[in-house]
Amino acid sequence: MRIIIHGVGAVGGVLAAALSRSGQQVVGIARGAQLEAIRADGLTVRTPQETFSARFDCVAHPSEITFEADDLILLTMKSQDTVAALEDLRAAGVRDQHIFCFQNGVANEPTALRRFPNVHGVTVMMPCSYLKPGQVSVRAQPRFGLFDIGRYPHGADDADRSLAAALDAAGFAGFPMEDVMQSKYGKLLMNLGNIIEASVGPGVDTAPLRQRVRSEAETVLQAAGISWVDVGAADPRRDAILKVAEVPGEARPGGSTVQSLRRGTGHVETDYLNGEIAYLGRRHDVEAPLNARLTQLGADLVRQGHSPGDLSVEDLTALLDGT
Amino acid sequence: MRIIIHGVGAVGGVLAAALSRSGQQVVGIARGAQLEAIRADGLTVRTPQETFSARFDCVAHPSEITFEADDLILLTMKSQDTVAALEDLRAAGVRDQHIFCFQNGVANEPTALRRFPNVHGVTVMMPCSYLKPGQVSVRAQPRFGLFDIGRYPHGADDADRSLAAALDAAGFAGFPMEDVMQSKYGKLLMNLGNIIEASVGPGVDTAPLRQRVRSEAETVLQAAGISWVDVGAADPRRDAILKVAEVPGEARPGGSTVQSLRRGTGHVETDYLNGEIAYLGRRHDVEAPLNARLTQLGADLVRQGHSPGDLSVEDLTALLDGT
Repeated sequence: MRIIIHGVGAVGGVLAAALSRSGQQVVGIARGAQLEAIRADGLTVRTPQETFSARFDCVAHPSEITFEADDLILLTMKSQDTVAALEDLRAAGVRDQHIFCFQNGVANEPTALRRFPNVHGVTVMMPCSYLKPGQVSVRAQPRFGLFDIGRYPHGADDADRSLAAALDAAGFAGFPMEDVMQSKYGKLLMNLGNIIEASVGPGVDTAPLRQRVRSEAETVLQAAGISWVDVGAADPRRDAILKVAEVPGEARPGGSTVQSLRRGTGHVETDYLNGEIAYLGRRHDVEAPLNARLTQLGADLVRQGHSPGDLSVEDLTALLDGT
Repeated sequence: MRIIIHGVGAVGGVLAAALSRSGQQVVGIARGAQLEAIRADGLTVRTPQETFSARFDCVAHPSEITFEADDLILLTMKSQDTVAALEDLRAAGVRDQHIFCFQNGVANEPTALRRFPNVHGVTVMMPCSYLKPGQVSVRAQPRFGLFDIGRYPHGADDADRSLAAALDAAGFAGFPMEDVMQSKYGKLLMNLGNIIEASVGPGVDTAPLRQRVRSEAETVLQAAGISWVDVGAADPRRDAILKVAEVPGEARPGGSTVQSLRRGTGHVETDYLNGEIAYLGRRHDVEAPLNARLTQLGADLVRQGHSPGDLSVEDLTALLDGT
């Protein structure tokens, strides 16, 4: 069993390095300077307790891989790149292999299931960052990350259990789940604040705004008949498994949308986070103006080349209230 | 009220030329040789009864358009290009304008609704072809095409009625509908044979195979709780409005998948046709092996550079039966 990690950014990088170190056969798919650095020196992971490097095979494109029947394929690219990645995998000969969506939002699983029969959702709880080519960090202990894992749309099978065991042995904690999408909707609710954090900058108190946005989303999910489980601070597993901790010498980098905006990647995930709520609201005749405006804001910030923190909390509040 | 037609291929071309001729203000979005030809000489439409040319504004990209609040935007690109088109529209300042998905399949409407609030589905019944830059044909009379039109997910509003009236005045027939997706699922069932026709070539009798594929799809739709209306030959409107007829001097070109494969566009729509059924089957625990294999076949034919008719009916039957 090989583990193919499609997209060696922050999440994919921590996974690839730690799984490889634990003895798993890993093949990464990366691009540009990241690929060159990994090929030259392996990938370095900075954690609160240690810094380690690991080497693993890394290619530029799925077409360079001869896929085997028992390969597990982890999608770790951003949601906006999923369709192209799936097309590449199919062109490279992937057929019935198990495909795991290690991505935020709930839109990747149906997109994959349109093309492939064995699709799994994974909730990623792992505060990690891309630092520079060949270097990532993860700010958690004692485990690097906590993952809920299950088939899409439901069920848990041997592939889920195999992956969970491999993750456990590599310093993560994997939990096979019968209804993983409940966990992913719980994570979606947490991610609705990502664009708020990116707008006003990390470290600014936006709790009241976030609560309003989340409350609107909960009303939408209820109207849509979608249930969720809380995977945030109230998740009892976090105490023993996953506490956020500082990496020595490193400033808090902010969440994934902050990082995308800062790096000028040209995209943020907002369409698949607040945009999912706006979509479900329209689909089920529930108003969701806050999440709709945040979705538009995400697109505007990217297009206008904004940096994290360019808006004040007052600006953002006025924008959300349509005033 | 302007009508923006995003994608001036066969469907978009007939619409743009006929609407423009009827006095509507049309702006097309086209590329390459098609754009050059339209700018130089307008677009020529060959029909069973006449050949006419029409001039209309045409640009290469939405960023060249200053959008107005009452613009109607028609999406006439293939489904695989919808996300990029929506991103371009948003970057060009589109916000609340009404967006109509004149496309096969049922995946475009939710994709648009994630980003925009006023989304409409349109069932396109119009046998048309792209002939060469600046020239398209439509093989129907007395009207060029028949369109069911309605809001997504449901309802019919003034924008639907305005567009239907404009279409009626331009030689088409538009029908506002409260539940347009029922019509689009009916069309989806008809389109499941597109990849069969492309595999064995137009004109080959594949009725038994098509019936098996459709029957499997109907079982899937029923399991998913999705209802549809028949918009095929049994649709009573067709007798008076839309009869397929030959264009003098032109061979039957085959359906849209045949045309895509022949032109080597690098994509076929199969993921959004048979792939939709395969997806729904997996989603609702119903086996749909015929549609799943046809989805894979569509991807294979494109990748391997096949032409329409490269498979025999016997080859295709064996492939579908997994023998």
